[in-house]
Order: sequence, then structure tokens, then C-alpha cells
Amino acid sequence: MKRSIITLLTDFGTRDAYVASMKGVILGINPYAALVDITHDVEARNVMEGAFLLGEAFSSFPKGTIHVAVVDPGVGGPRRPVLIVTAGYFFIGPDNGLFAFALRREKVRRIVLLDRAGFFRTPVSATFHGRDLFAPVAAHLSVAGRPGRFGRPVETVEPLCLPEPFEKGRRLTGQILHEDRFGNLLSNIGAERFARFTEGRPFVIRAKKRAIHSLSRTYGDVDRGSALALAGGSGLIELSVREGHAGKVLGLRRGDPVTIELSKA
Amino acid sequence: MKRSIITLLTDFGTRDAYVASMKGVILGINPYAALVDITHDVEARNVMEGAFLLGEAFSSFPKGTIHVAVVDPGVGGPRRPVLIVTAGYFFIGPDNGLFAFALRREKVRRIVLLDRAGFFRTPVSATFHGRDLFAPVAAHLSVAGRPGRFGRPVETVEPLCLPEPFEKGRRLTGQILHEDRFGNLLSNIGAERFARFTEGRPFVIRAKKRAIHSLSRTYGDVDRGSALALAGGSGLIELSVREGHAGKVLGLRRGDPVTIELSKA
Amino acid sequence: MKRSIITLLTDFGTRDAYVASMKGVILGINPYAALVDITHDVEARNVMEGAFLLGEAFSSFPKGTIHVAVVDPGVGGPRRPVLIVTAGYFFIGPDNGLFAFALRREKVRRIVLLDRAGFFRTPVSATFHGRDLFAPVAAHLSVAGRPGRFGRPVETVEPLCLPEPFEKGRRLTGQILHEDRFGNLLSNIGAERFARFTEGRPFVIRAKKRAIHSLSRTYGDVDRGSALALAGGSGLIELSVREGHAGKVLGLRRGDPVTIELSKA
Repeated sequence: MKRSIITLLTDFGTRDAYVASMKGVILGINPYAALVDITHDVEARNVMEGAFLLGEAFSSFPKGTIHVAVVDPGVGGPRRPVLIVTAGYFFIGPDNGLFAFALRREKVRRIVLLDRAGFFRTPVSATFHGRDLFAPVAAHLSVAGRPGRFGRPVETVEPLCLPEPFEKGRRLTGQILHEDRFGNLLSNIGAERFARFTEGRPFVIRAKKRAIHSLSRTYGDVDRGSALALAGGSGLIELSVREGHAGKVLGLRRGDPVTIELSKA
Repeated sequence: MKRSIITLLTDFGTRDAYVASMKGVILGINPYAALVDITHDVEARNVMEGAFLLGEAFSSFPKGTIHVAVVDPGVGGPRRPVLIVTAGYFFIGPDNGLFAFALRREKVRRIVLLDRAGFFRTPVSATFHGRDLFAPVAAHLSVAGRPGRFGRPVETVEPLCLPEPFEKGRRLTGQILHEDRFGNLLSNIGAERFARFTEGRPFVIRAKKRAIHSLSRTYGDVDRGSALALAGGSGLIELSVREGHAGKVLGLRRGDPVTIELSKA
Repeated sequence: MKRSIITLLTDFGTRDAYVASMKGVILGINPYAALVDITHDVEARNVMEGAFLLGEAFSSFPKGTIHVAVVDPGVGGPRRPVLIVTAGYFFIGPDNGLFAFALRREKVRRIVLLDRAGFFRTPVSATFHGRDLFAPVAAHLSVAGRPGRFGRPVETVEPLCLPEPFEKGRRLTGQILHEDRFGNLLSNIGAERFARFTEGRPFVIRAKKRAIHSLSRTYGDVDRGSALALAGGSGLIELSVREGHAGKVLGLRRGDPVTIELSKA
């Protein structure tokens, strides 16, 4: 039997025992599951950040991996618990946009509303669906598959208003999506989009008062302390400072605009 | 063979390599063990916090799970290393009250003083029993069971002075036990105790200057930024603020009193 | 088949999804690997700290464990990716000194320059060799061994300038290498070196204005709040404060000198 992989992404933090409770429930149903933390340090209730980080990591896992994500400010309310089956993966969590980044890259095959209480831990706490609803469904799915048995099919998931880059004349304008631990600033402009837009022509990348005139290959291409832009490991254009913290040095943060401007001939 | 689950709870943090050293020792004895972190961010030397978090999570794990807990300010001193066998679980760690919350809900079958040095890593460091004593005992237990072989039986464990709620006239007074990552304040008043006390009569929950007149089912039952009380996932009465940080908003912290007061007719 | 153990030590932190991406790649190649985090909270780009923590933990793992370490400020530049085979372990990561502490205690059998791109994830990001190069090599090694196939042999690894204690007359002078979560200060003076130097003669340990006249066995040997020195779990002389934070109380930090001075007769 192939070993099932179940990943967990939450905003529960690691100081409390909430994540462990989810793992205990999963291992009670499938003691052979391989449990992998994506992160539990998503900012509390920040669905967008959770969606972004899940979008960064999910496709590094082998096909068939079950991704459980719980950033769920509406827990116990009308938002729907769902299982989304795509060409490569299973996603389980609240239907609040948390899977939006991942689903831009995955073909959705089926969406199941998790309404079969027989699969839940009882009683279901109104505030801890991670442990009582999502964890046991993921574990049962990992044991015996057949996603259709967990509830009735639904047609669509909730959208997340993802900030998209836009072109106007000689400018492509995006924004900072994420600052990582090193202070690298990940924008929402993909490297391919960047290449299609610039087509090898000279350009300048502007963010606040900073202007960067080339795309580096790696950090070492510039001097220590200098700013650079590169296509990062996630395929997104990143602003960095060599051996420094770009967020602090450049005074930029999530949501700030980044503009690619074609130079005049 | 059923896969053995060993959980770890410590105050070692995750910046150092102490927890990894424990895991290395365990996997050297039982490479098939499933290792699960409960948390390693217990406040340094805070036995009460460790006991509380272990009490929250242990019962989500399947029967037979081995829970290793090390919050151990008296390491190397006269406090005894113990293995506690209950109806459902094994608990391994220093006998300093760390298992007190868990043992309120578990029937103790046997207590073993860990005095058989043949099971320890040698030499045993006087300051790192987690790696040299508790980890190898847990691993050997996971491989071949038979808890009696790890030492001689003892009759009792050290008590932990757990703050208990008390009733006086129309009032039930408890206190804040824990503030979680979201700022939710978990009290020591269980939902069942609350129900027995109020018996459906009108009540007011008081904490500092705040008065809450009902028990909510979930966070969405009140407006954003409003305070609420509910029976949380752990079965304890919690004070929360919807999409806010109750600890900061209400100015409450661990040890502060929470009172349930029956309203006059 | 013996289960393969792969450890991970990085400076990637746990807020981002970088570590999870490495794990996903590994599990895609070897779903049965046991993945263990040593730590991911090494200070950003601090190779010395990473080397120290790896040196603390690696030997607690069973022989044959694969240790992947990535603290890699020169990623994508001329520094070489290597696999180091020792008498007991495999080490995979950038050749920048990160394995220096471990290699002081291990006999090197073979060093392989990782230059066979067929084992890498494609395309290889210039900034994320952890995911695209080191993780897949570790996973392939865990499945089928044969380190020689990953590249051509090389003779030496880069040295790391490790601070060594030195003797002069009646004094042995070392320095603080690491402050752990509890505030314990680990020096670079090993307990054996200490014993050879003092040979049972009276001594005083000096650090800033503090003088400690004996080596304690454990924290409980002194009063609460008192400073002490002991041979810690890692075999290094440590300065501690019982139930306190030695770093703050003694005003010492990484790099500060610690002197053992033989008392006059």
C-alpha cells in the first residue's frame, strides 16, 4: 500500500496543542499516514496569507497528497466545509477562498460538501472543526478514498479576491503578496508574465523610490546590501537585498505596488 | 504490527536542537515510531502550563499512545522519573505534577519509578533526562511494551495544585488558565459544571468590568469586536472577542478570576 | 527494509512554506522516509550557528541517518553542493563550513560534489537549492544508497573558522558559542578539556565580573537565581542561572570570553 501523505496548514500556531489534537485524531483513524506541517504560523484569520502559502507548497508534494488547510474565522457559521478533488490533489477545509491560489494551477474534478456527520468526531465542537470535522474526513479519505461518500456534490467554491497585476501602456503593475523570513518580498507578478511583457526590452522595476534595472539570477549577483530583483523559487518576481532584509531596507510591505516599466527607446 | 505513536511535549523550544536529539534517540531504538510534537513552546519551567496543554491534547490520540512530557526544572535532583500507565495511555516524564490535568480524566493502573539504568542512554547527563532517560524508555516501551520492566512500582504521583472553581451562594468563581494564540481565554470552568450550576437560569459572566449575559455557540454569534463566552473545543468556558484578541481587549490574563453569577429572579 | 531517516536543519523559519516544499519533494521520491526537523530557526545566514546546532544533534541519530542542512547565503553562486559520507552518517548541503562541528567528531570517508543534474528537480531555481537539489539527492540516497553516483569525488571541504579555546600559563580561555532557549550559555570548552586542564586542582571560572569556583552537577546544586557552571548535555562547559536566564542575568552573549584560571597554591 502506498503511504498516504496528509499536510496541515493552519493559523493555530505551535504554542497551543490544537495542531497536535488534529494529528491525534488523524492517527487514530490512519496510524500509517505521513503527516507534514506546511505552516501553522499563518497570521490569525488571514485567509489570503494561508491561501498564498498553500499555493507555494502544495505542488511540491506527490500526486494524491491530501492537503488540509484551516484558517477559518467563520468556523461554526454558514461557510461550508468542503473537499475539493483536483487532477493531482485533495484539498479539505473551509470554503472561504483558502484554496484559491492552489486552484489557479489545478483542474477541479469534483467539489464535495462535507455533510455526512458519520465521518466526524463527536460531538463536533462549534469552534474546532479542524479537529472534529476536517481531520477525521482527511484520515478516512487517506484510508479508503472514495471522496463522493463524504457528502453531496456542489458546483463551485467561494472566490478569493486575488490581487492581479494589470498592464497599462508601458507599465505592468503588481503588488507585494508576501514577505518571507529573510525579508524577501514576493510580488504577484509571475516570471513568465514578466518575460511576456518585457520581451527582452530594457525595463526598470520600481517600488517606492527604488529603481532596479535588471533581473538577477541569484543573490550573489549584486554587492552585499544592494537591492535586486529575481525570479524566486516560486516563479514569482521577488525583491531582495543581498544579505539584508528587503522589507526593512526598502520600506515595503504586503500590498505595496511594484511596477515594471518599459524603458523608452 | 500496529504503529506506535509517541508524542513529545517540552519547554525546550524549537530554536535549539534538544528536541531533535530526543527524536534521534527514539528512532535509533524504534525507527518505525510515529513521532508527534504536542508543543515545545511551553514557557520555560512552567509545569502548570505544560500540564494544561498535555491535558488538552492527550485524549485526541488513539489508545496506547505514549506521551512523553518534559518540563523539568528539578532535572538531576530528587524528583522521580516515572512511567504512568492508565486505562488508555502511557505517560513518561518527571514526577512533578506535569501529568495532573491528564490524570484527572484517566484511571491510573500502574506507576513505575524509572530506576533501571540499563534502558538509559549512557552516560546519563544530569541536565538532559529528556534525551538520556525519558526518550529511550519511551522507545523501548513502544517496541516491546511490558512497563513493569522499567522499574519498581510506586503508589502515588506528586500532586499539582490545580486551581479549582468554587461555589458560594449565587456565584461560581473560576479563573483564567490559559490564553491561546488567538487571545482566547480558557477558564477552569468546564461546560458541564457550568450547566449544572446555571440549570437554565439567567446568569451573567463577569471578568474585570466586563459582563456577558449569554453563552454563544460560535464566534459568529456576535458582532466583530464584541466579547463573548462559549464552551470551547476543550469543553471549558472560554472568553473571546470575535476577530479580536480577548486577552488584550479585555485586559485579562492567566490567574484572573471569572465569575458566573445567577441573576436575581 | 530499514526505514530511512532524513533530518533537516535550515534557516528557513517555520512561517513560510519552504521547509514543507523540501519535505514534499523528498516524500515524492521516498514516501517511507522518516523526516525529522533539527531546527529551522537558525538565524538567517548564520552558518556558524547552523554548524553548532547540527554538531549538537547529529550523533543522537542512528547510524545511516541522512542529515540535510541548508544555511546557504551563497546559494546559486560558486560554493559547491556536496554529499559527505562519514563513518556513521551522510551530510548533504552547501560546502560553506556548515558541517564543520559535526566533522570534528566524524571520520570522513568520501566527499561527493553534487554535479549530476539528473537527480535534481527541474528546473533548478537559482535561489532554492534546498528544494531543487539537496532534497531530491537526499531522497534518492535514502532509497538506493550508492553515494558515488551523485557526482565526482572531491578531496576536501571548506573549513569553518571555529573558535578554539587556548591555554596560556594558568589560564584556559574559551568563549560563548551559543545561548539556548533557557538562557544557558554554552562555551567552546569541552568537559574533557576542562578536566585535563584543571587535573583536580582548585580553579575559578571567570566571565565578565562573575567568578564561579566549582563545577555543579545539576541546576539544583545552587540556590534559585544563583549562577553556576556545569558540564551540559552536549559535553560542553555551560554557564547557567538556576531558574533564571543566564544570558540576561550575567550580561553575556555569543563571542564573550570565558576563562578557567587555576588558583594559586
